[in-house]
Amino acid sequence: MITPSQLNPDEARKLIRVKDWDNPTAGMANGFIQANLAILPKELAFEFLLFCQRNPKSCPIIDVTEPGSPVPMLSAPNADIRTDLPKYRVYKNGELAEELSDITSYWNDDMVAFLLGCSFTFEDALLKNNIPIRHIEENRNVPMYKTNIGCVGAGRFEGPMVVSMRPMTEKEAIRAVQVTSRFPSVHGAPVHIGNPEAIGINNIQRPDFGDPVTIKDGEVPVFWACGVTPQAVAMHVKPEIMITHAPGHMFITDLKNEEFSVL
Amino acid sequence: MITPSQLNPDEARKLIRVKDWDNPTAGMANGFIQANLAILPKELAFEFLLFCQRNPKSCPIIDVTEPGSPVPMLSAPNADIRTDLPKYRVYKNGELAEELSDITSYWNDDMVAFLLGCSFTFEDALLKNNIPIRHIEENRNVPMYKTNIGCVGAGRFEGPMVVSMRPMTEKEAIRAVQVTSRFPSVHGAPVHIGNPEAIGINNIQRPDFGDPVTIKDGEVPVFWACGVTPQAVAMHVKPEIMITHAPGHMFITDLKNEEFSVL
Repeated sequence: MITPSQLNPDEARKLIRVKDWDNPTAGMANGFIQANLAILPKELAFEFLLFCQRNPKSCPIIDVTEPGSPVPMLSAPNADIRTDLPKYRVYKNGELAEELSDITSYWNDDMVAFLLGCSFTFEDALLKNNIPIRHIEENRNVPMYKTNIGCVGAGRFEGPMVVSMRPMTEKEAIRAVQVTSRFPSVHGAPVHIGNPEAIGINNIQRPDFGDPVTIKDGEVPVFWACGVTPQAVAMHVKPEIMITHAPGHMFITDLKNEEFSVL
Repeated sequence: MITPSQLNPDEARKLIRVKDWDNPTAGMANGFIQANLAILPKELAFEFLLFCQRNPKSCPIIDVTEPGSPVPMLSAPNADIRTDLPKYRVYKNGELAEELSDITSYWNDDMVAFLLGCSFTFEDALLKNNIPIRHIEENRNVPMYKTNIGCVGAGRFEGPMVVSMRPMTEKEAIRAVQVTSRFPSVHGAPVHIGNPEAIGINNIQRPDFGDPVTIKDGEVPVFWACGVTPQAVAMHVKPEIMITHAPGHMFITDLKNEEFSVL
Protein backbone atom coordinates (compact mmCIF):
# COMPACT_ATOMS: atom_id res chain seq x y z
CA MET A 1 0.00 0.00 0.00
CA ILE A 2 1.50 3.28 -1.16
CA THR A 3 1.49 6.32 1.10
CA PRO A 4 1.80 9.14 -1.44
CA SER A 5 3.12 11.66 1.09
CA GLN A 6 6.04 9.34 1.97
CA LEU A 7 7.25 8.81 -1.59
CA ASN A 8 10.45 10.52 -2.62
CA PRO A 9 10.17 12.70 -5.74
CA ASP A 10 11.68 10.04 -8.02
CA GLU A 11 9.19 7.43 -6.81
CA ALA A 12 6.28 9.82 -7.11
CA ARG A 13 7.21 10.81 -10.68
CA LYS A 14 7.70 7.17 -11.65
CA LEU A 15 4.22 6.31 -10.36
CA ILE A 16 2.86 9.14 -12.48
CA ARG A 17 4.97 8.24 -15.53
CA VAL A 18 3.70 4.66 -15.68
CA LYS A 19 0.15 5.99 -15.35
CA ASP A 20 -0.50 4.48 -11.93
CA TRP A 21 -1.44 7.94 -10.64
CA ASP A 22 -3.73 10.39 -12.41
CA ASN A 23 -4.97 12.39 -9.43
CA PRO A 24 -3.96 15.84 -8.18
CA THR A 25 -0.50 15.88 -6.62
CA ALA A 26 -1.33 17.77 -3.42
CA GLY A 27 0.13 15.85 -0.48
CA MET A 28 2.52 13.72 -2.57
CA ALA A 29 6.24 13.60 -1.73
CA ASN A 30 5.86 15.77 1.35
CA GLY A 31 8.40 18.54 1.82
CA PHE A 32 9.38 18.81 -1.85
CA ILE A 33 8.58 21.76 -4.08
CA GLN A 34 5.82 21.27 -6.62
CA ALA A 35 5.66 23.52 -9.64
CA ASN A 36 3.29 24.95 -12.22
CA LEU A 37 4.18 24.10 -15.82
CA ALA A 38 4.02 26.33 -18.90
CA ILE A 39 5.52 25.16 -22.19
CA LEU A 40 5.90 27.74 -24.96
CA PRO A 41 7.59 27.97 -28.36
CA LYS A 42 11.15 29.27 -28.23
CA GLU A 43 10.11 32.35 -30.16
CA LEU A 44 8.16 33.52 -27.09
CA ALA A 45 10.66 32.31 -24.49
CA PHE A 46 12.67 35.51 -23.99
CA GLU A 47 9.57 37.67 -23.56
CA PHE A 48 7.93 35.20 -21.20
CA LEU A 49 11.10 34.79 -19.13
CA LEU A 50 11.36 38.58 -18.95
CA PHE A 51 7.70 38.78 -17.92
CA CYS A 52 8.38 36.30 -15.12
CA GLN A 53 11.49 38.19 -14.06
CA ARG A 54 9.48 41.44 -13.89
CA ASN A 55 6.62 39.85 -11.96
CA PRO A 56 8.39 37.56 -9.51
CA LYS A 57 5.49 37.40 -7.04
CA SER A 58 3.10 36.04 -9.66
CA CYS A 59 5.69 34.11 -11.66
CA PRO A 60 8.43 32.78 -9.40
CA ILE A 61 10.80 30.81 -11.63
CA ILE A 62 11.92 27.44 -10.29
CA ASP A 63 13.52 26.11 -13.48
CA VAL A 64 13.57 26.65 -17.25
CA THR A 65 14.60 23.92 -19.67
CA GLU A 66 17.05 24.44 -22.50
CA PRO A 67 15.12 24.79 -25.79
CA GLY A 68 14.17 21.31 -27.00
CA SER A 69 15.20 19.53 -23.81
CA PRO A 70 12.43 17.92 -21.76
CA VAL A 71 14.72 17.62 -18.73
CA PRO A 72 14.59 20.21 -15.92
CA MET A 73 18.30 19.91 -15.13
CA LEU A 74 18.32 22.10 -12.03
CA SER A 75 15.20 20.95 -10.27
CA ALA A 76 14.86 17.27 -11.29
CA PRO A 77 17.64 15.97 -13.57
CA ASN A 78 16.12 12.47 -13.77
CA ALA A 79 12.69 13.69 -14.77
CA ASP A 80 10.97 14.08 -18.12
CA ILE A 81 8.60 16.99 -18.37
CA ARG A 82 6.59 15.22 -21.10
CA THR A 83 5.48 12.27 -18.99
CA ASP A 84 5.94 13.10 -15.33
CA LEU A 85 2.81 15.13 -14.66
CA PRO A 86 -0.49 13.32 -14.17
CA LYS A 87 -2.50 15.60 -16.43
CA TYR A 88 -1.69 18.26 -19.04
CA ARG A 89 -3.70 20.79 -20.98
CA VAL A 90 -2.85 21.67 -24.55
CA TYR A 91 -3.96 25.10 -25.77
CA LYS A 92 -3.94 26.07 -29.44
CA ASN A 93 -4.23 29.76 -30.27
CA GLY A 94 -5.39 30.39 -26.71
CA GLU A 95 -8.17 27.75 -26.76
CA LEU A 96 -8.16 24.50 -24.79
CA ALA A 97 -7.68 21.76 -27.37
CA GLU A 98 -7.02 18.65 -25.33
CA GLU A 99 -6.44 17.28 -21.83
CA LEU A 100 -4.11 14.28 -21.67
CA SER A 101 -1.59 12.41 -19.52
CA ASP A 102 1.44 12.37 -21.84
CA ILE A 103 2.56 15.09 -24.22
CA THR A 104 5.41 13.25 -25.94
CA SER A 105 3.58 13.44 -29.26
CA TYR A 106 3.37 17.24 -29.01
CA TRP A 107 6.99 17.82 -28.00
CA ASN A 108 9.45 19.30 -30.46
CA ASP A 109 12.90 20.91 -30.54
CA ASP A 110 11.41 24.35 -30.47
CA MET A 111 9.83 24.08 -27.02
CA VAL A 112 10.89 25.63 -23.72
CA ALA A 113 9.34 24.47 -20.42
CA PHE A 114 8.94 26.91 -17.55
CA LEU A 115 8.45 25.57 -14.01
CA LEU A 116 6.97 28.19 -11.70
CA GLY A 117 6.57 28.06 -7.94
CA CYS A 118 3.16 27.20 -6.50
CA SER A 119 1.46 27.94 -3.22
CA PHE A 120 1.80 24.41 -1.78
CA THR A 121 5.19 25.33 -0.34
CA PHE A 122 4.09 28.39 1.56
CA GLU A 123 0.87 26.69 2.69
CA ASP A 124 3.04 24.02 4.26
CA ALA A 125 4.99 26.76 6.05
CA LEU A 126 1.76 28.44 7.21
CA LEU A 127 0.37 25.17 8.59
CA LYS A 128 3.59 24.54 10.48
CA ASN A 129 3.03 27.95 12.09
CA ASN A 130 -0.51 27.02 13.14
CA ILE A 131 -2.09 29.38 10.65
CA PRO A 132 -5.30 27.77 9.39
CA ILE A 133 -5.87 27.26 5.67
CA ARG A 134 -9.60 27.48 5.21
CA HIS A 135 -9.89 25.85 1.77
CA ILE A 136 -7.99 22.83 3.06
CA GLU A 137 -10.20 22.69 6.18
CA GLU A 138 -13.30 22.92 3.96
CA ASN A 139 -11.87 20.55 1.33
CA ARG A 140 -12.26 23.04 -1.51
CA ASN A 141 -10.08 24.63 -4.15
CA VAL A 142 -8.45 27.87 -3.07
CA PRO A 143 -10.54 30.90 -4.12
CA MET A 144 -8.85 32.99 -6.82
CA TYR A 145 -9.74 36.44 -8.15
CA LYS A 146 -8.80 38.72 -11.04
CA THR A 147 -7.63 42.05 -9.63
CA ASN A 148 -7.09 45.58 -10.88
CA ILE A 149 -3.36 45.22 -10.13
CA GLY A 150 -1.58 45.30 -13.48
CA CYS A 151 1.39 43.05 -14.09
CA VAL A 152 4.46 44.72 -15.50
CA GLY A 153 4.32 43.97 -19.22
CA ALA A 154 7.13 42.43 -21.28
CA GLY A 155 6.77 42.46 -25.05
CA ARG A 156 3.47 40.80 -25.93
CA PHE A 157 2.83 39.59 -22.37
CA GLU A 158 0.63 41.76 -20.16
CA GLY A 159 -2.49 41.52 -18.04
CA PRO A 160 -3.94 41.71 -14.55
CA MET A 161 -2.60 39.86 -11.53
CA VAL A 162 -4.67 36.93 -10.29
CA VAL A 163 -4.60 36.41 -6.53
CA SER A 164 -5.50 33.59 -4.17
CA MET A 165 -7.16 34.34 -0.82
CA ARG A 166 -6.85 32.81 2.64
CA PRO A 167 -8.88 34.26 5.54
CA MET A 168 -7.28 34.51 9.00
CA THR A 169 -7.20 36.70 12.11
CA GLU A 170 -5.22 39.93 11.93
CA LYS A 171 -2.68 38.51 14.33
CA GLU A 172 -2.22 35.48 12.12
CA ALA A 173 -1.94 37.77 9.10
CA ILE A 174 1.13 39.45 10.59
CA ARG A 175 2.75 36.09 11.22
CA ALA A 176 1.77 34.99 7.71
CA VAL A 177 3.65 37.99 6.24
CA GLN A 178 6.76 36.96 8.16
CA VAL A 179 6.50 33.29 7.27
CA THR A 180 5.85 33.75 3.55
CA SER A 181 8.44 36.54 3.15
CA ARG A 182 11.03 33.81 3.64
CA PHE A 183 9.86 32.15 0.41
CA PRO A 184 10.08 34.66 -2.46
CA SER A 185 10.48 31.75 -4.88
CA VAL A 186 6.96 30.53 -4.18
CA HIS A 187 5.00 33.83 -4.34
CA GLY A 188 6.52 35.35 -1.18
CA ALA A 189 4.70 37.86 1.02
CA PRO A 190 1.02 38.72 0.48
CA VAL A 191 0.21 41.45 -2.06
CA HIS A 192 -2.79 42.73 -0.07
CA ILE A 193 -4.48 42.37 3.31
CA GLY A 194 -8.05 43.46 4.00
CA ASN A 195 -10.58 45.34 1.84
CA PRO A 196 -11.08 43.31 -1.36
CA GLU A 197 -12.48 46.32 -3.27
CA ALA A 198 -9.15 48.12 -2.97
CA ILE A 199 -7.74 45.62 -5.48
CA GLY A 200 -10.85 45.41 -7.66
CA ILE A 201 -12.60 42.43 -6.09
CA ASN A 202 -16.30 43.26 -5.75
CA ASN A 203 -17.69 40.06 -4.28
CA ILE A 204 -15.36 37.97 -2.15
CA GLN A 205 -17.92 35.13 -2.18
CA ARG A 206 -17.75 34.88 -5.98
CA PRO A 207 -14.19 33.98 -6.92
CA ASP A 208 -13.22 33.98 -10.60
CA PHE A 209 -11.56 30.57 -10.21
CA GLY A 210 -11.75 27.91 -7.49
CA ASP A 211 -14.36 27.84 -4.73
CA PRO A 212 -15.62 30.35 -2.14
CA VAL A 213 -14.58 29.70 1.47
CA THR A 214 -15.99 30.80 4.83
CA ILE A 215 -14.65 34.05 6.28
CA LYS A 216 -15.37 34.01 10.01
CA ASP A 217 -16.06 37.00 12.26
CA GLY A 218 -12.81 38.70 13.17
CA GLU A 219 -10.97 37.42 10.11
CA VAL A 220 -9.49 39.41 7.27
CA PRO A 221 -8.88 38.14 3.75
CA VAL A 222 -5.17 37.85 2.92
CA PHE A 223 -4.22 37.84 -0.77
CA TRP A 224 -1.21 36.30 -2.47
CA ALA A 225 -0.10 36.55 -6.09
CA CYS A 226 -1.22 33.36 -7.80
CA GLY A 227 0.43 31.07 -10.33
CA VAL A 228 -2.67 31.25 -12.52
CA THR A 229 -1.47 34.73 -13.55
CA PRO A 230 1.24 33.69 -16.03
CA GLN A 231 -1.04 31.13 -17.68
CA ALA A 232 -3.82 33.70 -18.04
CA VAL A 233 -1.37 36.23 -19.44
CA ALA A 234 0.21 33.74 -21.84
CA MET A 235 -3.20 32.60 -23.03
CA HIS A 236 -4.04 36.18 -23.88
CA VAL A 237 -1.13 36.21 -26.37
CA LYS A 238 -2.81 33.22 -28.08
CA PRO A 239 0.39 31.33 -28.89
CA GLU A 240 0.02 28.74 -31.65
CA ILE A 241 0.66 26.12 -28.99
CA MET A 242 1.00 26.25 -25.23
CA ILE A 243 0.98 23.32 -22.84
CA THR A 244 0.32 23.58 -19.10
CA HIS A 245 -0.35 21.28 -16.17
CA ALA A 246 -4.03 20.61 -15.49
CA PRO A 247 -5.11 22.47 -12.31
CA GLY A 248 -3.77 20.71 -9.22
CA HIS A 249 -1.76 18.20 -11.28
CA MET A 250 1.68 19.66 -10.65
CA PHE A 251 5.28 18.74 -11.39
CA ILE A 252 7.13 17.34 -8.36
CA THR A 253 10.74 18.55 -8.15
CA ASP A 254 13.73 17.19 -6.21
CA LEU A 255 14.06 20.49 -4.35
CA LYS A 256 13.13 20.68 -0.71
CA ASN A 257 10.82 23.47 0.41
CA GLU A 258 13.35 24.76 2.93
CA GLU A 259 16.07 25.08 0.27
CA PHE A 260 14.02 27.89 -1.24
CA SER A 261 13.80 30.03 1.86
CA VAL A 262 15.97 33.15 1.87
CA LEU A 263 16.48 33.13 5.62
CA MET B 1 29.39 73.76 -6.04
CA ILE B 2 27.93 70.30 -6.65
CA THR B 3 27.91 67.69 -3.92
CA PRO B 4 27.64 64.46 -5.96
CA SER B 5 26.29 62.41 -3.06
CA GLN B 6 23.37 64.82 -2.61
CA LEU B 7 22.21 64.78 -6.23
CA ASN B 8 19.02 62.90 -7.00
CA PRO B 9 19.35 60.23 -9.72
CA ASP B 10 17.86 62.46 -12.43
CA GLU B 11 20.33 65.24 -11.65
CA ALA B 12 23.26 62.84 -11.51
CA ARG B 13 22.38 61.26 -14.84
CA LYS B 14 21.91 64.70 -16.43
CA LEU B 15 25.36 65.75 -15.27
CA ILE B 16 26.75 62.61 -16.85
CA ARG B 17 24.68 62.97 -20.04
CA VAL B 18 25.94 66.49 -20.77
CA LYS B 19 29.51 65.23 -20.17
CA ASP B 20 30.10 67.30 -17.05
CA TRP B 21 31.02 64.11 -15.19
CA ASP B 22 33.32 61.39 -16.48
CA ASN B 23 34.53 59.93 -13.18
CA PRO B 24 33.50 56.74 -11.39
CA THR B 25 30.02 56.97 -9.89
CA ALA B 26 30.79 55.63 -6.40
CA GLY B 27 29.30 58.02 -3.86
CA MET B 28 26.95 59.75 -6.32
CA ALA B 29 23.21 60.02 -5.55
CA ASN B 30 23.55 58.40 -2.15
CA GLY B 31 21.00 55.74 -1.25
CA PHE B 32 20.06 54.87 -4.84
CA ILE B 33 20.89 51.58 -6.53
CA GLN B 34 23.70 51.66 -9.08
CA ALA B 35 23.89 48.92 -11.68
CA ASN B 36 26.31 47.07 -13.93
CA LEU B 37 25.46 47.30 -17.64
CA ALA B 38 25.67 44.59 -20.29
CA ILE B 39 24.23 45.19 -23.76
CA LEU B 40 23.88 42.18 -26.05
CA PRO B 41 22.26 41.38 -29.40
CA LYS B 42 18.69 40.11 -29.09
CA GLU B 43 19.75 36.74 -30.46
CA LEU B 44 21.66 36.11 -27.21
CA ALA B 45 19.13 37.73 -24.89
CA PHE B 46 17.12 34.66 -23.89
CA GLU B 47 20.21 32.62 -23.05
CA PHE B 48 21.81 35.46 -21.13
CA LEU B 49 18.61 36.19 -19.20
CA LEU B 50 18.35 32.49 -18.39
CA PHE B 51 21.99 32.47 -17.29
CA CYS B 52 21.27 35.39 -14.95
CA GLN B 53 18.14 33.70 -13.63
CA ARG B 54 20.14 30.54 -12.90
CA ASN B 55 22.98 32.43 -11.22
CA PRO B 56 21.17 35.09 -9.21
CA LYS B 57 24.02 35.68 -6.78
CA SER B 58 26.46 36.60 -9.53
CA CYS B 59 23.91 38.14 -11.89
CA PRO B 60 21.13 39.82 -9.92
CA ILE B 61 18.78 41.39 -12.47
CA ILE B 62 17.65 44.93 -11.74
CA ASP B 63 16.10 45.71 -15.13
CA VAL B 64 16.11 44.53 -18.75
CA THR B 65 15.11 46.82 -21.62
CA GLU B 66 12.71 45.82 -24.35
CA PRO B 67 14.68 44.91 -27.50
CA GLY B 68 15.67 48.13 -29.27
CA SER B 69 14.58 50.44 -26.45
CA PRO B 70 17.33 52.39 -24.65
CA VAL B 71 14.97 53.19 -21.75
CA PRO B 72 15.07 51.11 -18.55
CA MET B 73 11.34 51.52 -17.87
CA LEU B 74 11.27 49.91 -14.45
CA SER B 75 14.38 51.34 -12.87
CA ALA B 76 14.73 54.79 -14.49
CA PRO B 77 11.98 55.66 -17.00
CA ASN B 78 13.52 59.10 -17.75
CA ALA B 79 16.97 57.72 -18.49
CA ASP B 80 18.72 56.78 -21.72
CA ILE B 81 21.08 53.86 -21.42
CA ARG B 82 23.15 55.16 -24.38
CA THR B 83 24.23 58.43 -22.78
CA ASP B 84 23.71 58.22 -19.04
CA LEU B 85 26.84 56.35 -17.99
CA PRO B 86 30.14 58.22 -17.78
CA LYS B 87 32.16 55.60 -19.59
CA TYR B 88 31.41 52.54 -21.72
CA ARG B 89 33.43 49.71 -23.16
CA VAL B 90 32.64 48.24 -26.55
CA TYR B 91 33.77 44.66 -27.14
CA LYS B 92 33.80 43.09 -30.60
CA ASN B 93 34.09 39.31 -30.80
CA GLY B 94 35.22 39.31 -27.17
CA GLU B 95 38.01 41.88 -27.61
CA LEU B 96 37.95 45.42 -26.21
CA ALA B 97 37.51 47.68 -29.23
CA GLU B 98 36.81 51.09 -27.77
CA GLU B 99 36.18 53.03 -24.56
CA LEU B 100 33.86 56.01 -24.95
CA SER B 101 31.32 58.22 -23.18
CA ASP B 102 28.31 57.86 -25.50
CA ILE B 103 27.21 54.77 -27.40
CA THR B 104 24.40 56.29 -29.46
CA SER B 105 26.28 55.55 -32.68
CA TYR B 106 26.48 51.85 -31.78
CA TRP B 107 22.86 51.45 -30.73
CA ASN B 108 20.41 49.57 -32.96
CA ASP B 109 16.97 47.96 -32.81
CA ASP B 110 18.45 44.57 -32.13
CA MET B 111 19.99 45.42 -28.76
CA VAL B 112 18.89 44.46 -25.26
CA ALA B 113 20.38 46.16 -22.20
CA PHE B 114 20.73 44.25 -18.94
CA LEU B 115 21.16 46.15 -15.68
CA LEU B 116 22.61 43.97 -12.93
CA GLY B 117 22.96 44.74 -9.23
CA CYS B 118 26.34 45.84 -7.92
CA SER B 119 27.99 45.68 -4.53
CA PHE B 120 27.65 49.38 -3.71
CA THR B 121 24.23 48.71 -2.19
CA PHE B 122 25.32 46.02 0.22
CA GLU B 123 28.51 47.89 1.09
CA ASP B 124 26.31 50.79 2.16
CA ALA B 125 24.33 48.38 4.36
CA LEU B 126 27.55 46.93 5.84
CA LEU B 127 28.91 50.39 6.67
CA LYS B 128 25.64 51.31 8.38
CA ASN B 129 26.20 48.23 10.55
CA ASN B 130 29.73 49.35 11.47
CA ILE B 131 31.34 46.61 9.44
CA PRO B 132 34.58 48.00 7.95
CA ILE B 133 35.21 47.87 4.21
CA ARG B 134 38.94 47.58 3.84
CA HIS B 135 39.28 48.61 0.19
CA ILE B 136 37.34 51.79 0.92
CA GLU B 137 39.52 52.47 3.99
CA GLU B 138 42.64 51.89 1.90
CA ASN B 139 41.24 53.76 -1.10
CA ARG B 140 41.70 50.84 -3.48
CA ASN B 141 39.54 48.82 -5.84
CA VAL B 142 37.89 45.80 -4.27
CA PRO B 143 40.02 42.63 -4.76
CA MET B 144 38.37 40.11 -7.10
CA TYR B 145 39.27 36.48 -7.80
CA LYS B 146 38.38 33.75 -10.26
CA THR B 147 37.18 30.69 -8.32
CA ASN B 148 36.66 27.00 -8.96
CA ILE B 149 32.92 27.47 -8.34
CA GLY B 150 31.20 26.82 -11.66
CA CYS B 151 28.25 28.92 -12.68
CA VAL B 152 25.18 27.03 -13.84
CA GLY B 153 25.37 27.14 -17.63
CA ALA B 154 22.60 28.32 -19.97
CA GLY B 155 23.01 27.64 -23.66
CA ARG B 156 26.33 29.14 -24.76
CA PHE B 157 26.91 30.92 -21.46
CA GLU B 158 29.07 29.15 -18.89
CA GLY B 159 32.17 29.77 -16.80
CA PRO B 160 33.56 30.17 -13.29
CA MET B 161 32.17 32.51 -10.65
CA VAL B 162 34.23 35.61 -9.90
CA VAL B 163 34.09 36.77 -6.27
CA SER B 164 34.96 39.95 -4.42
CA MET B 165 36.58 39.80 -0.96
CA ARG B 166 36.22 41.88 2.18
CA PRO B 167 38.21 40.94 5.33
CA MET B 168 36.57 41.28 8.75
CA THR B 169 36.44 39.64 12.18
CA GLU B 170 34.47 36.44 12.53
CA LYS B 171 31.89 38.22 14.62
CA GLU B 172 31.46 40.84 11.92
CA ALA B 173 31.22 38.06 9.33
CA ILE B 174 28.14 36.65 11.03
CA ARG B 175 26.50 40.07 11.08
CA ALA B 176 27.53 40.55 7.44
CA VAL B 177 25.68 37.36 6.48
CA GLN B 178 22.54 38.68 8.16
CA VAL B 179 22.82 42.14 6.66
CA THR B 180 23.51 41.08 3.08
CA SER B 181 20.94 38.25 3.11
CA ARG B 182 18.35 41.02 3.09
CA PHE B 183 19.55 42.10 -0.36
CA PRO B 184 19.36 39.14 -2.76
CA SER B 185 19.02 41.59 -5.67
CA VAL B 186 22.53 42.92 -5.12
CA HIS B 187 24.47 39.65 -4.68
CA GLY B 188 22.91 38.70 -1.33
CA ALA B 189 24.68 36.59 1.30
CA PRO B 190 28.39 35.66 0.96
CA VAL B 191 29.24 32.55 -1.06
CA HIS B 192 32.21 31.65 1.15
CA ILE B 193 33.84 32.58 4.45
CA GLY B 194 37.41 31.62 5.34
CA ASN B 195 39.98 29.41 3.56
CA PRO B 196 40.52 30.86 0.07
CA GLU B 197 41.95 27.58 -1.26
CA ALA B 198 38.62 25.85 -0.71
CA ILE B 199 37.25 27.87 -3.62
CA GLY B 200 40.37 27.73 -5.77
CA ILE B 201 42.12 30.94 -4.70
CA ASN B 202 45.82 30.18 -4.18
CA ASN B 203 47.17 33.60 -3.26
CA ILE B 204 44.81 36.03 -1.54
CA GLN B 205 47.35 38.81 -2.02
CA ARG B 206 47.27 38.42 -5.81
CA PRO B 207 43.70 39.12 -6.94
CA ASP B 208 42.79 38.50 -10.59
CA PHE B 209 41.11 41.94 -10.79
CA GLY B 210 41.27 45.03 -8.57
CA ASP B 211 43.84 45.56 -5.81
CA PRO B 212 45.06 43.52 -2.82
CA VAL B 213 43.98 44.78 0.62
CA THR B 214 45.33 44.26 4.14
CA ILE B 215 43.97 41.31 6.10
CA LYS B 216 44.63 41.97 9.78
CA ASP B 217 45.30 39.40 12.49
CA GLY B 218 42.04 37.87 13.65
CA GLU B 219 40.25 38.63 10.40
CA VAL B 220 38.79 36.17 7.90
CA PRO B 221 38.24 36.82 4.21
CA VAL B 222 34.55 36.95 3.28
CA PHE B 223 33.65 36.35 -0.36
CA TRP B 224 30.67 37.57 -2.34
CA ALA B 225 29.61 36.69 -5.88
CA CYS B 226 30.76 39.56 -8.10
CA GLY B 227 29.14 41.38 -11.01
CA VAL B 228 32.26 40.83 -13.09
CA THR B 229 31.09 37.23 -13.53
CA PRO B 230 28.41 37.82 -16.19
CA GLN B 231 30.72 40.07 -18.21
CA ALA B 232 33.50 37.48 -18.09
CA VAL B 233 31.09 34.74 -19.08
CA ALA B 234 29.54 36.79 -21.90
CA MET B 235 32.97 37.73 -23.22
CA HIS B 236 33.82 34.04 -23.41
CA VAL B 237 30.96 33.60 -25.92
CA LYS B 238 32.65 36.26 -28.08
CA PRO B 239 29.48 37.98 -29.25
CA GLU B 240 29.85 40.07 -32.40
CA ILE B 241 29.19 43.11 -30.24
CA MET B 242 28.79 43.61 -26.51
CA ILE B 243 28.77 46.91 -24.65
CA THR B 244 29.37 47.27 -20.90
CA HIS B 245 30.02 50.05 -18.39
CA ALA B 246 33.69 50.83 -17.77
CA PRO B 247 34.69 49.51 -14.30
CA GLY B 248 33.31 51.78 -11.59
CA HIS B 249 31.34 53.88 -14.07
CA MET B 250 27.90 52.55 -13.26
CA PHE B 251 24.30 53.33 -14.19
CA ILE B 252 22.41 55.22 -11.47
CA THR B 253 18.80 54.06 -11.12
CA ASP B 254 15.79 55.73 -9.47
CA LEU B 255 15.42 52.79 -7.10
CA LYS B 256 16.30 53.20 -3.46
CA ASN B 257 18.60 50.65 -1.86
CA GLU B 258 16.05 49.80 0.80
CA GLU B 259 13.36 49.03 -1.80
CA PHE B 260 15.44 46.01 -2.78
CA SER B 261 15.61 44.42 0.65
CA VAL B 262 13.43 41.35 1.14
CA LEU B 263 12.85 42.01 4.83
